[in-house]
Amino acid sequence: MTYTLVLLRHGESEWNALNLFTGWVDVPLNDKGREEGANAGRLLKEAGVLPDIVHTSLLRRAINTAVVSLDAADRHWIPVKRSWRLNERHYGALQGKDKKQTLETYGEEQFMLWRRSFDVPPPPLADDDEFSQVGQPQYADIPDAEMPRAECLKDVIERLLPYWESSIVPDLRDGKVVLVAAHGNSLRAIVKHLDGISDADIAALNIPTGQPLVYRLDESLQPTVPGGEYLDPEAAAAAAAAVANQGR
Amino acid sequence: MTYTLVLLRHGESEWNALNLFTGWVDVPLNDKGREEGANAGRLLKEAGVLPDIVHTSLLRRAINTAVVSLDAADRHWIPVKRSWRLNERHYGALQGKDKKQTLETYGEEQFMLWRRSFDVPPPPLADDDEFSQVGQPQYADIPDAEMPRAECLKDVIERLLPYWESSIVPDLRDGKVVLVAAHGNSLRAIVKHLDGISDADIAALNIPTGQPLVYRLDESLQPTVPGGEYLDPEAAAAAAAAVANQGR
Repeated sequence: MTYTLVLLRHGESEWNALNLFTGWVDVPLNDKGREEGANAGRLLKEAGVLPDIVHTSLLRRAINTAVVSLDAADRHWIPVKRSWRLNERHYGALQGKDKKQTLETYGEEQFMLWRRSFDVPPPPLADDDEFSQVGQPQYADIPDAEMPRAECLKDVIERLLPYWESSIVPDLRDGKVVLVAAHGNSLRAIVKHLDGISDADIAALNIPTGQPLVYRLDESLQPTVPGGEYLDPEAAAAAAAAVANQGR
Repeated sequence: MTYTLVLLRHGESEWNALNLFTGWVDVPLNDKGREEGANAGRLLKEAGVLPDIVHTSLLRRAINTAVVSLDAADRHWIPVKRSWRLNERHYGALQGKDKKQTLETYGEEQFMLWRRSFDVPPPPLADDDEFSQVGQPQYADIPDAEMPRAECLKDVIERLLPYWESSIVPDLRDGKVVLVAAHGNSLRAIVKHLDGISDADIAALNIPTGQPLVYRLDESLQPTVPGGEYLDPEAAAAAAAAVANQGR
């Protein structure tokens, strides 16, 4: 008996295309991103990996990637659960900033620290900033002290794991094929947890957009194949390399 | 204290445009249908009628109408519930048939009996017909004896009301603004129930596509305004007239 988990990073958004830091800003997919989602659904259907339930963040780029991929896989009708705990890392004061310009202004070292440091968050975003999410109705249930204003990966892991344990693990234990449609850093948090990747080594892990990553988990929820398996390994490797080079 | 219920019939599907009987056949929206959904979302947002939860059928034309309308209303992140009990009426052996040709073949009387009779279903669809849904995974939980092969409106009401009582009413009683994204006949079933319309009079009621119909319900779940209120009454009247003339 193995459990099946599918991780899917959202396709290209309008701000990915503009090379801006996005974080919690609720930017829509562009046409390429929707096509990536549909392609992911076709891969799932061809492989016979058919989700029984989907978990998404509260951000429309993940929600709509789930919608178009499940539609293409003829699984549009499955139950849906959502949580802010699956949201992208909050990029703090960098939200809305150009990645290339940030690299040029602050230099390679500071830039990579903000992008890939495990435990150093960027500067916090002011609540009255145009790119702040404080006060938005979808986050009304988060106590103000817990509402993110900037996060490092460590922060993402801390707010994500309670949802993993309370909502995703029970669906896996029920024998459901679980799709998680989310973001680069919330999925890195899950992968780090599953594969037991060290705080140092996680920096080098890039998850490609629109490429279903399938984990078969044993009774202890350990991956039977470390790192999982991409349904289209060649495309996934190329896409991961593109992510690593963002800002160049 | 009033409760707020919004009924939304899916936008135009590929088979609506071809003038075919659809029923449980899982046809996608076309571009016009997606635009209708987005327009419905803009109307909701302008009116400040913001759904807290959405209930859909298992059919992609209703699911995707919900998706595009909620996205346009910035409510894409709300919880989702689905049930086959909100599906369109099963059109039996008429599924996949041309409406105009059916009218010419069988004559006005038989045609209107099949379209609008309260308690006479069309002939049943064979399980091995290309347009049968028997055996599809989304309906695996329906006992075979209850799986529809053809339905009249009376049948739709009988299979819909248990879901109304067990799932929709509790959300209304919780004070949630409830959006139901569904179909001509499943929504007629709800309207008949809410407004206490007779078996004879319901035949004349047509619900337009993509037009949010808002009911404010009192403590006894009685409409404070009989028939509810369309957010865009002029467009709704024109669209309802178009529905009434289908097959001509």
